[in-house]
Amino acid sequence: QLLAEVIAAFQPKLLKGKRVLLTAGPTFEPIDPVRGITNLSSGKMGYAVARAAYEAGAEVTLVSGPTALATPYGVRRISVQTAQQMHDIVMAQLTAQSASSATDIFVAVAAVADWRVANASTQKLKKNADGSAPELVFEQNPDILATVAALPKPPYCVGFAAESEKLLQYGEAKRARKNVPLLVGNIGHDTFGKDDNQLVLFDANGHTDLPRAGKQQLARQLIAAIAARLGA
Amino acid sequence: QLLAEVIAAFQPKLLKGKRVLLTAGPTFEPIDPVRGITNLSSGKMGYAVARAAYEAGAEVTLVSGPTALATPYGVRRISVQTAQQMHDIVMAQLTAQSASSATDIFVAVAAVADWRVANASTQKLKKNADGSAPELVFEQNPDILATVAALPKPPYCVGFAAESEKLLQYGEAKRARKNVPLLVGNIGHDTFGKDDNQLVLFDANGHTDLPRAGKQQLARQLIAAIAARLGA
Repeated sequence: QLLAEVIAAFQPKLLKGKRVLLTAGPTFEPIDPVRGITNLSSGKMGYAVARAAYEAGAEVTLVSGPTALATPYGVRRISVQTAQQMHDIVMAQLTAQSASSATDIFVAVAAVADWRVANASTQKLKKNADGSAPELVFEQNPDILATVAALPKPPYCVGFAAESEKLLQYGEAKRARKNVPLLVGNIGHDTFGKDDNQLVLFDANGHTDLPRAGKQQLARQLIAAIAARLGA
Repeated sequence: QLLAEVIAAFQPKLLKGKRVLLTAGPTFEPIDPVRGITNLSSGKMGYAVARAAYEAGAEVTLVSGPTALATPYGVRRISVQTAQQMHDIVMAQLTAQSASSATDIFVAVAAVADWRVANASTQKLKKNADGSAPELVFEQNPDILATVAALPKPPYCVGFAAESEKLLQYGEAKRARKNVPLLVGNIGHDTFGKDDNQLVLFDANGHTDLPRAGKQQLARQLIAAIAARLGA
């Protein structure tokens, strides 16, 4: 913690006085009391961005799905399991604030499940002797980023996209569809769980590559890119 | 490690010269390159049993699904992701051995997925604009414990059952169905991720309760119970 504080002290205070809300990690959508659907996100990228935002002088709240990571120094963490819980906590954070304590920046890094199991069981599903499998019915989860971006006075919204193909095409399309000023693209199965990453920033002016580097270094570059776009 | 070795040195050598093969943790069944179905098993109970077996003088191989846990001191770990991979590694371990290096005891602690996704996608599934959800088709995974127990010369087989209801009824039924001499029952959503647990041992003579305690302590009691049944 001492080391973390020393490192933080030497980072430029690009976000001094700003309030930053982030999501990170996977979500877990229950199938029954013990099983569920999740994804390979480790939370490392989101936690790195949270740490970089704190280093840059921001007041940081991190809404996190289940991960094995330690909360970054100085960051306030709220733990959730499902996409719906993450949505509810984020909206509560954004709407409970008075004008003087409004969130300035929302960074949606979490790999949120698009679907939840509509017919989740309250008892553990049993294997049938005839080898038949359960039939799961899915319903769409709320789109947290799009919901925040559609608020009357939204914070500056930054989305993340993990794609396994056609990143440049899907990235710009996703930015436009979610109506956010900045979308960060990475190749999902190439980054999940790893310590380094490679990002592409999409904004109204096109896209910018952040070459492969450690996630903490990329997180600092991203915070600088956000601060520059905020005119800070 | 030094402390672990000292503690190990003071445990009774109930399994000296025995070879123990264990499975632990959850499995992860891919839906697409980033999503999958898993369960809430943390791997703690299986890792505790692996450690206790090593402390008791056994040579221990641990086949582990994805967990954030450190490999117990002295234990050989092989990491896998899916139930099919876990099955394949376990069978390879059991069949590649000569008579002189045969596995004496197999303890199946892992919370293995009963089903895998038959139509897993090689590309990330996209959300459809019309809100429709993917249709997943499931097929049953191999039953590792039952397969091992059905070998011509099986090791002493110990199964684990995580049930959310009617443990006494399901536990004995599961022991009979899988045809194993010892089955260990615990209440799944009451133990997953926790540091303590409460076990019920089912064997041909009925059932024995191991009252709530730390998982490491219960693991040592379980190893003693296995050794007693082996006449060691």
